[in-house]
Amino acid sequence: MIEHQTTIKIRYGETDKMGIVHHSNYPLYLEEARMDLLQEIGMNYGEIEDSGVILPVVSMNFRFYSPLFYDDVITIKTALTRPSGIKLIFDYEIFNQLNKLVCKAETTLVFADMKTRKLIRPPKEYQKKFVEEVEI
Amino acid sequence: MIEHQTTIKIRYGETDKMGIVHHSNYPLYLEEARMDLLQEIGMNYGEIEDSGVILPVVSMNFRFYSPLFYDDVITIKTALTRPSGIKLIFDYEIFNQLNKLVCKAETTLVFADMKTRKLIRPPKEYQKKFVEEVEI
Amino acid sequence: MIEHQTTIKIRYGETDKMGIVHHSNYPLYLEEARMDLLQEIGMNYGEIEDSGVILPVVSMNFRFYSPLFYDDVITIKTALTRPSGIKLIFDYEIFNQLNKLVCKAETTLVFADMKTRKLIRPPKEYQKKFVEEVEI
Amino acid sequence: MIEHQTTIKIRYGETDKMGIVHHSNYPLYLEEARMDLLQEIGMNYGEIEDSGVILPVVSMNFRFYSPLFYDDVITIKTALTRPSGIKLIFDYEIFNQLNKLVCKAETTLVFADMKTRKLIRPPKEYQKKFVEEVEI
Repeated sequence: MIEHQTTIKIRYGETDKMGIVHHSNYPLYLEEARMDLLQEIGMNYGEIEDSGVILPVVSMNFRFYSPLFYDDVITIKTALTRPSGIKLIFDYEIFNQLNKLVCKAETTLVFADMKTRKLIRPPKEYQKKFVEEVEI
Repeated sequence: MIEHQTTIKIRYGETDKMGIVHHSNYPLYLEEARMDLLQEIGMNYGEIEDSGVILPVVSMNFRFYSPLFYDDVITIKTALTRPSGIKLIFDYEIFNQLNKLVCKAETTLVFADMKTRKLIRPPKEYQKKFVEEVEI
Repeated sequence: MIEHQTTIKIRYGETDKMGIVHHSNYPLYLEEARMDLLQEIGMNYGEIEDSGVILPVVSMNFRFYSPLFYDDVITIKTALTRPSGIKLIFDYEIFNQLNKLVCKAETTLVFADMKTRKLIRPPKEYQKKFVEEVEI
Repeated sequence: MIEHQTTIKIRYGETDKMGIVHHSNYPLYLEEARMDLLQEIGMNYGEIEDSGVILPVVSMNFRFYSPLFYDDVITIKTALTRPSGIKLIFDYEIFNQLNKLVCKAETTLVFADMKTRKLIRPPKEYQKKFVEEVEI
């Protein structure tokens, strides 16, 4: 299992008239978190796309326990739990600055060809990275 | 079961560098769809908030089958399936202009007091609306 | 001068904790308005990009007179005033459902090559459209 | 003149199908930058709102010189140049990681009462902060 931790500060424009962070912003936080994780194991996402491969999201699930507010500083604990096969499944836990768990989420990504948008097997160089990391 | 249909045109700014609609926009589409449904059964969401009640999202789940593109016109079929008790569970199917199912989703909302943000039972006037609609 | 009118309904997620529409949403409204205008004179923006041409925004100016709120229905009056040369200058007036002027704005777009991102002269087919429309 | 510098990393979801950062994200970057500046002179924006005062944006102007891309790290140099009277005028310069100036912008904010949304004179405690800072 590959794990990573990302810190993000909530922007004012991410709040809504309820006074809390609008739920449409959470996918952006997770995206930042998982790209940080990929970066850490040597998979810069910009470079992945430059090589003609994209990683579209095919499912996402969120459970919200507590709201987030303007100026909150969140920590996202991201885990790439089952990187085998064609899918990448990421699990996330979001904590606020009081270390309170405010959200749990999961996203599934697939490897696809940038031009055809068809699913592909993960290129060998990426498979290797996952295996190395997971076996440690 | 209460059903409703909403049509939305995709904005250019909702696309990302993959050339498709970024997944963080889908929660906004669903929100528009369910507020249309609520409006249709006489529950204008603005008025709900004016009465001191909010409906925060406590969970959301998305499954993406096909991407959406700039200028696509989507139809969202929204169903309020189980409006009993404290939760409102909405199911959604998003179709593109070729009538292809591109996404299925579900969101769960709860009734809460605007000031305290504590969960509350749905006010009687709303309960009545659900019951009437569901029994028909 | 080419003019067009677009109607947009404000989404809940576009509000912020002040209870009003966050100013970062206005560029999205204008974009929808000017693409409607271009569509009307036979310049579908998707087709423009398919032909290898992009129209990036090089400047934008906004003056806000009154806030917008959730559920407001706005009308944007868009004018393409000076379509000569390499630039497209659009002027906008945004009115709420009470016909109150809430915002004036201006955006300048240029023609560029999609691959090189270098400025180009507008393709002849587009120049012709502007001239025809403006001379009427 | 009060100056401040803020660093922001571009998110993937902030790009559009041109492959560059969509212009609707720049107001969010500026907002973060000016709230950092205010924080530095002891005016936490959350606390300002808690005291019943809001700072709505009444105008914003942007000039874009070069696009921004996914993974870029920008530096925003913010200056509060003329904090006298009822208005706060902020000037911004955005640089990318190669220290290239990519955007210049200006925003004007006013002090208003949170409940009535009417313009007010800046509370004395804030006026004092500006004067102290500017005179240094």
